[in-house]
Amino acid sequence: MVELVGDERLDYLLAEQMRIIQSPSVFSFSLDAVLLSKFVSVPIQKGKIVDLCSGNGVIPLLLSTRTKGKIIGVEIQERLFNMAERSIRYNKLEEQISMRHSDIKEIAKEIGYSKYDVVTCNPPYFPTPSQEEINKNEHFAIARHEILCSLEDVVQTSSKLLRQGGKAAFVHRPGRLMDILSSMRANRIEPKRIQFVYPKPGKEANMLLIEGIKDGSPDLKVLPPLFVYDGQEYTPEVKRILYGEE
Amino acid sequence: MVELVGDERLDYLLAEQMRIIQSPSVFSFSLDAVLLSKFVSVPIQKGKIVDLCSGNGVIPLLLSTRTKGKIIGVEIQERLFNMAERSIRYNKLEEQISMRHSDIKEIAKEIGYSKYDVVTCNPPYFPTPSQEEINKNEHFAIARHEILCSLEDVVQTSSKLLRQGGKAAFVHRPGRLMDILSSMRANRIEPKRIQFVYPKPGKEANMLLIEGIKDGSPDLKVLPPLFVYDGQEYTPEVKRILYGEE
Repeated sequence: MVELVGDERLDYLLAEQMRIIQSPSVFSFSLDAVLLSKFVSVPIQKGKIVDLCSGNGVIPLLLSTRTKGKIIGVEIQERLFNMAERSIRYNKLEEQISMRHSDIKEIAKEIGYSKYDVVTCNPPYFPTPSQEEINKNEHFAIARHEILCSLEDVVQTSSKLLRQGGKAAFVHRPGRLMDILSSMRANRIEPKRIQFVYPKPGKEANMLLIEGIKDGSPDLKVLPPLFVYDGQEYTPEVKRILYGEE
Repeated sequence: MVELVGDERLDYLLAEQMRIIQSPSVFSFSLDAVLLSKFVSVPIQKGKIVDLCSGNGVIPLLLSTRTKGKIIGVEIQERLFNMAERSIRYNKLEEQISMRHSDIKEIAKEIGYSKYDVVTCNPPYFPTPSQEEINKNEHFAIARHEILCSLEDVVQTSSKLLRQGGKAAFVHRPGRLMDILSSMRANRIEPKRIQFVYPKPGKEANMLLIEGIKDGSPDLKVLPPLFVYDGQEYTPEVKRILYGEE
């Protein structure tokens, strides 16, 4: 049983035998989060993982199917934090996943420096919006714009949390490629794997997935491109990521 | 008529009605140069173009089919410079293409600062080799390694040559993505278009093409990926670039 608030729904979480609380007016997870949770390298049997800007907890939930490690999700918006907590309980994952209602800029102080194996983040993509836009829907505005959490905050925080050799993985827009690479290197997270995601063949990339290693040596690989659609349908590769076995 | 030296051959230059002098023991052009000469944006009717690290002049020769602008090729190795000059004469392109036997680090002083519309370069890719390797074949070593011309030299020189709003296009290895982006931005050439080249679907990229604008605004587009082979054959797209009409 789970308590749903307002227009919240208990949606199926893809192929996994899990459900997730979403709300069309507050937050629904996107393909970006799903791709990131499959892209990131995670230790299978153990390890400590932190997901920043967790929203309704989609990435921790998805990661729990790939690892037995402990996962901490960090979300600053109380409404989303609360949705994530309820989804975790609904799926009986309280042992593995815990949520923190915190600002990512403070989180290392709260949960400890240099001790995590993996940090993930699907951060807000857009520059700060107008006050009018914020007023219209604060939840959306905060989740989508760099209001409470800039790209630099995310990378800096990841570096503080990671042990040497730990991995950080992010999803972002290709227009920020330069910024994300510079910020990672400046914060001692050496970029190691990057994958560009294209909506369909012949189109420009609209997403990038990137993983770096704290204090790693420079050696960046550009993985095969990922195409999302083939005509009106998902490509077989994306179907496999969304619905298929790993 | 053309004088060929040693093991030089007068090869066909792809679909173009042109020939180029090559030598298996000294220098033969690669797909990289061909892709770069099609990737770069060039003014059609006029303009001033410089190609750095020109080798046997393959890029100036190919560019002459896409623009009526004047093209200067710069090559430090006398043997290659000489091959390029003979190929230009053979193709009767002396009016449009001129070669300079110069060090790129000195070239802006020689031919002028901030007055060129386009700069191209297919630079040496590999770090400095051992003395033994250099002794074995100096021509190869210089053409392939960053002995006389580092990535930083190339980008810095390009910036010196370009007018504001002028474009620089390079081809390089994906492992240097970070360095090339940082170096471009540091030298006021804002990266605007990037394309990754994959040997075949499912493989990591092994080449990148990048174009920037001097003093341009930040807005990087990641173009559709380019696949070179489909099984044993070139893909239709690469065939079109190599042999087809533009």
